[in-house]
Amino acid sequence: MSSFAFTVLHRDTSSRARLSRFTTPHGTVEMPAFMPVGTQATVKGVRLDDLRSVGAQMILSNTYHLALRPGETVVRDLGGLHGFMRWDGPILTDSGGFQLFSLAAMNKVDEQGAVFRSHLDGSLVALSPERAVEIQEALGSDVAMVLDHVVALPGERERILDAAERTLRWAQRARDAAKRPDQAQFAIVQGGLDEGLRVGNAEALAKLDFPGYAIGGLSVGETPDEMYRVLDFTAPALPDDKPRYLMGVGKPVDLLEAIARGVDLFDCVLPTRNGRNALAFTDAGPLRLRNEKFQRDECPLEADCPCPACRYSRGYLRHLFQVGEMLGPMLLSLHNLAYYQRLLAGAREAIAEDRFDAYRRAKLAGWATTNNDAAEPQINTNEIG
Amino acid sequence: MSSFAFTVLHRDTSSRARLSRFTTPHGTVEMPAFMPVGTQATVKGVRLDDLRSVGAQMILSNTYHLALRPGETVVRDLGGLHGFMRWDGPILTDSGGFQLFSLAAMNKVDEQGAVFRSHLDGSLVALSPERAVEIQEALGSDVAMVLDHVVALPGERERILDAAERTLRWAQRARDAAKRPDQAQFAIVQGGLDEGLRVGNAEALAKLDFPGYAIGGLSVGETPDEMYRVLDFTAPALPDDKPRYLMGVGKPVDLLEAIARGVDLFDCVLPTRNGRNALAFTDAGPLRLRNEKFQRDECPLEADCPCPACRYSRGYLRHLFQVGEMLGPMLLSLHNLAYYQRLLAGAREAIAEDRFDAYRRAKLAGWATTNNDAAEPQINTNEIG
Repeated sequence: MSSFAFTVLHRDTSSRARLSRFTTPHGTVEMPAFMPVGTQATVKGVRLDDLRSVGAQMILSNTYHLALRPGETVVRDLGGLHGFMRWDGPILTDSGGFQLFSLAAMNKVDEQGAVFRSHLDGSLVALSPERAVEIQEALGSDVAMVLDHVVALPGERERILDAAERTLRWAQRARDAAKRPDQAQFAIVQGGLDEGLRVGNAEALAKLDFPGYAIGGLSVGETPDEMYRVLDFTAPALPDDKPRYLMGVGKPVDLLEAIARGVDLFDCVLPTRNGRNALAFTDAGPLRLRNEKFQRDECPLEADCPCPACRYSRGYLRHLFQVGEMLGPMLLSLHNLAYYQRLLAGAREAIAEDRFDAYRRAKLAGWATTNNDAAEPQINTNEIG
Repeated sequence: MSSFAFTVLHRDTSSRARLSRFTTPHGTVEMPAFMPVGTQATVKGVRLDDLRSVGAQMILSNTYHLALRPGETVVRDLGGLHGFMRWDGPILTDSGGFQLFSLAAMNKVDEQGAVFRSHLDGSLVALSPERAVEIQEALGSDVAMVLDHVVALPGERERILDAAERTLRWAQRARDAAKRPDQAQFAIVQGGLDEGLRVGNAEALAKLDFPGYAIGGLSVGETPDEMYRVLDFTAPALPDDKPRYLMGVGKPVDLLEAIARGVDLFDCVLPTRNGRNALAFTDAGPLRLRNEKFQRDECPLEADCPCPACRYSRGYLRHLFQVGEMLGPMLLSLHNLAYYQRLLAGAREAIAEDRFDAYRRAKLAGWATTNNDAAEPQINTNEIG
């Protein structure tokens, strides 16, 4: 594991936020960091050079989808995920656990693993901790997630405990199956909303000394306050000297609340999915570009944004969506990714200067600005692609 | 009209091809030139910086579509077409004549103009030579086409003559209505496949001394050989000291055959529309990327192509189309536009060196290479967007 390292560079005195650096075989990641989602080995509608130019350091891709299409051996034969999609920076792949939960038409989980029907053609596919390792080793990502057992919230304590304990046993099996020294495994904490279950699961996983830890099973039906409360007790239970990754989250506010609680890494489809649906994130809250009031609006989405979309007027961007032109989704996806990257860059700067809490409060105040478009994004966060 | 100039720089000794330069208020165009089509003020799936990087000099946009959505006054209020879509190079707008013919659900043409039902909502819209000028002046394109009357081929001689004569009268009305000194009007020759009608119409229009001339009413049902024959007698009937524009054409072979007959300017949706449908143009003929044989193909589309798509393997590009990712259409559209621009740049170089006929023959030989993918593109050329 000598290609990997994690260093906490500074601890914010106004919160539990931390500034850190994660080193991988494909480069370093300054954290807190946000990973754009490239489900099918492409971040939807965005070219890689643009992704780099807006500040993305590391991306996520999905094991479940790539194993189904084109198949992990095709990706391996075409240079692994880095060569296949031509992204030379760090890549994290998930394990497929969340997709079993959210996408598969049927899934049956026992101790051995899961059997599910493909959401594409209904064929039966098996996924086990070992198989998830095998697929991700063929993909060649820098960080591979262990297979976890996700359950819906709210749920019975017994069921949540059972899934958390299985996730722990599966983590050990994933560890035993791993062969690539150039790939780091992150374990995933489960345990629902229950403090005892979460902390117990986190401490048991911590003993296995993984190079990184994720908090899974959130954004699956709970309220934001419930999620923040889980982070309050789960993040401190994880090793201080390892990166902490909150999977599939979230809205801009969620990122700042999680960073304040000690989380270092995020992924979410919100910026791209909302972009494709004509919603642009700004410091004054989201803009819904289909709104007629933007028809002759000469302003860019956001005055100080350097992204390619902000070279255009809101009126032009609205036109693209009204007439169904691809350039609309392309530009708004890029704007939203740039927004997220700028939000995280600002967070890192604020942490370095011990003013993260003020930064968080200032952003929240801006997003609460009363305007007709400042409604919550209506799209669920923790979904794929 | 002092912002406009046209200079023939060199005449190929091996054909009737000419190398020329067309100056507009937004820059010069080295001809023969190909204009990517930006029907709704965007070249589908392509960013403008990419369009420039592959060598596009001038683009075409569609009066009919923009007048319907967002309306030409919206475009005008947002900086005219150049400011609206942020293309600072030359722009040509068509007149809507071809769309009346091809798209409108109903159209009724009389001497005054045309009344048609919008293909969007069925509402009645009127277009006349004067109205086409008014719209294009609001759009602010560098070159505005006069409204012409297009008829289907084959057609009765009487009907074709009537349309050609109406097109001539409408050209004079368009001339009389024009007010913008920074916009050049090109007239359009009609006359079907009939030599007498075409030459007569060309000579009559030539007397009106427009700054440029288009050959319209082709790619509407005739064979390639019929089209080439029309060019054989129509191009020489047009003024030698004005640019000659073949509207809505076409396949790579059509461009070279037309250049050999003295045509200087082209537009067509083929490169982008085929790109969206997984067909890539190459010197060895078209590749259909959905073909399974490309699944593990590590080669780029074309070895010597500098376009962004050719940084990827055919296997990856195929994957994008198989899973329905936007990046596939984005990259193949760009590759095909790059292919067309390189084809035209090669043509200009060959003309300068008096070897255009050899260039044309060498390209034709390459395209005729026997391979499974070298079938004709199956998509009609002369359609919109």
